[in-house]
Amino acid sequence: METIRLGIAGLGRAFSLMLPTFLGDARVRLVAACDPREAARKQFEADFDAPTFDDIDALARGPDIDAIYIASPHQFHAAHTRIAAAHGKHVLVEKPMALSLAECDDMIDACRTANVHLIVGHCHSFDAPYLRTRELIASGAFGDVKMIHALNFTDYLYRPRRPEELKTEEGGGAVFSQAAHQVDIVRMLAGSRATRIRAAVGNWDAARPTEGAYTATLWFENGAFATLSYNGYAHFDSDEWIGWIGEMGQARSPDEYGVARRKLSQVASREEEARLKAAGTYGGNAYTSASQGADARSHQHFGPLIVSCERADLRPMPEAIVVYSDERRERIELDAPRVPRAEVIDELIGAVHGGVAPLHDGEWARGTLEICLAMLRSSAQACDVVIGKK
Amino acid sequence: METIRLGIAGLGRAFSLMLPTFLGDARVRLVAACDPREAARKQFEADFDAPTFDDIDALARGPDIDAIYIASPHQFHAAHTRIAAAHGKHVLVEKPMALSLAECDDMIDACRTANVHLIVGHCHSFDAPYLRTRELIASGAFGDVKMIHALNFTDYLYRPRRPEELKTEEGGGAVFSQAAHQVDIVRMLAGSRATRIRAAVGNWDAARPTEGAYTATLWFENGAFATLSYNGYAHFDSDEWIGWIGEMGQARSPDEYGVARRKLSQVASREEEARLKAAGTYGGNAYTSASQGADARSHQHFGPLIVSCERADLRPMPEAIVVYSDERRERIELDAPRVPRAEVIDELIGAVHGGVAPLHDGEWARGTLEICLAMLRSSAQACDVVIGKK
Repeated sequence: METIRLGIAGLGRAFSLMLPTFLGDARVRLVAACDPREAARKQFEADFDAPTFDDIDALARGPDIDAIYIASPHQFHAAHTRIAAAHGKHVLVEKPMALSLAECDDMIDACRTANVHLIVGHCHSFDAPYLRTRELIASGAFGDVKMIHALNFTDYLYRPRRPEELKTEEGGGAVFSQAAHQVDIVRMLAGSRATRIRAAVGNWDAARPTEGAYTATLWFENGAFATLSYNGYAHFDSDEWIGWIGEMGQARSPDEYGVARRKLSQVASREEEARLKAAGTYGGNAYTSASQGADARSHQHFGPLIVSCERADLRPMPEAIVVYSDERRERIELDAPRVPRAEVIDELIGAVHGGVAPLHDGEWARGTLEICLAMLRSSAQACDVVIGKK
Repeated sequence: METIRLGIAGLGRAFSLMLPTFLGDARVRLVAACDPREAARKQFEADFDAPTFDDIDALARGPDIDAIYIASPHQFHAAHTRIAAAHGKHVLVEKPMALSLAECDDMIDACRTANVHLIVGHCHSFDAPYLRTRELIASGAFGDVKMIHALNFTDYLYRPRRPEELKTEEGGGAVFSQAAHQVDIVRMLAGSRATRIRAAVGNWDAARPTEGAYTATLWFENGAFATLSYNGYAHFDSDEWIGWIGEMGQARSPDEYGVARRKLSQVASREEEARLKAAGTYGGNAYTSASQGADARSHQHFGPLIVSCERADLRPMPEAIVVYSDERRERIELDAPRVPRAEVIDELIGAVHGGVAPLHDGEWARGTLEICLAMLRSSAQACDVVIGKK
């Protein structure tokens, strides 16, 4: 069994969501970490008997680390990737890859120069149902992809946030955080280069002044088009159309309603909100692994999605791909995940040890960021934005 | 009780779908009809003991007719409306109102000159759940409309068709036939003038060379935007998200799959297909009122739709409006329809006898056609189309 020694840069929410993977996947060893929060560092030291640091330079200098998982706030991804690469460490960086294409180019250059791999994730396009759907499409059995419909209605904007997460210029809002998933999935399933986009973004809660919603049409070189809609102000919850299985693959109760808004209504200030977020994150006094979907029995997902091919519609679901073909409807059952997000580790180890080119490399993720930035621009300028034009 | 004496121009599919209304609503008397098909005329004479004609001139000359329901093929709506109006008959014309804005202007002028009402429908925007949702929005209790998401996945393109229904230039295809519903509903719920549209249409079955699918973003003067998606090539059936209640309000079985494609695959030619359509229509040997949703116990609908307001999402369903507000989720139950589409008769009688300005008048329906035409143009020219610009 090939293993990987992982250093962690940032013990916040993203790390909390990856921790079930790191704990469950025997190929991963967590060997060091850095974070500005002392409580998180102490927790990590206690849990993993491993050193921690308060900055990434010290972490990256460690000799016994194969790769660094960069899960710091979005605006630090580029700088932290450069540091990790400069010390010869492979990089697994959280989505969104960065906040500008110039930063992406820098990151790609830095990793290429240092001869290390750069993988961007977790992103829901790693989820087994989407990867399996991609294979089914690639088989050619259903004809060309013609139309994709993807939507997601969540309470995204009302979950506890740090102030920067509500500022678009610092990488906050639904386009940077959520479109990053949806665009990545749709690109992967379309199997073709995106050529243009037209989008509308919604920014309609003055108390949380960033994009909470969007809708976009994305055109592809092969003639397919996709509709991507996201409403993070939503009261309706589209997990209803996923059999009440949540984003993290966890069972949800239809009777649970309005929890995020109710909790937030009891919070008096931005500072208290940030403390609330920290408390529920690794090292915080309200952190529980159960709240991070560690007990999930189904695959993760990012909302209802239908890929319409010439001879079938394919619907990736957390437990099966439903194939609606000309003659019949059938479910291709998926094995339950042994470890959530194991696909990320597959890709990382495949690259580092197997020399397998990763699907979610820097160039790929740059393409997704380009579309997310174009989404903001299309909405602001009220016109199509051509993708790939400098 | 105020009644209306109705002449029927065209005993085809649209009439078949309105017949349960005409039969069930005691305010309606069917007093004459015209149709080129002798079998349909004979059936009408037998059913209603009323005269029939083979052209609309003869029908419109009848003295004891208050209004004419024009349910002829789309390309005849304008000419037939002019004839009805010239004989002083009020007009209820099926959607789409016509094929060009010039025709719409003619129809509006003709009815205004003759001092008769012009109402366009049935269209699903008459359905009680949408009208009730409109009232809820207008109450102001939920704040402004911000975003509407409407979708519909059906087997539209594979139902039996006459050849002209597969030719866009003759008013065929999903944009003329189906967007006419969806655009009308979305405009009504947005409660504001549409200002621009960006659309993509799909035309991907060479054997049925018209638009079978589309996606569009529609912007409104009040800042709201809407996503409208339709896939008439679909294998997935979005009635699944409407509790398996069909467009006509009828109970459907999830186990019934692929019926339209299966039937069509046994049809050898376009001529046979047209005969099959005629057989299932009024006067045809396979016509049954049951197949027209006459036994429906729920309201009709046009696919899943969510209106997102500032403080609630509203979801019109065939039996209730589901209101997802900040604090709670509640169902506003709707009385079961006594007669399907009675709202059309309400509006017709309200205009003719009560002097109540109809919601679905010529100007209104012209606005919907303008958006449908702009949808075709936006897709062809790959850019936004501004609405209301000559």
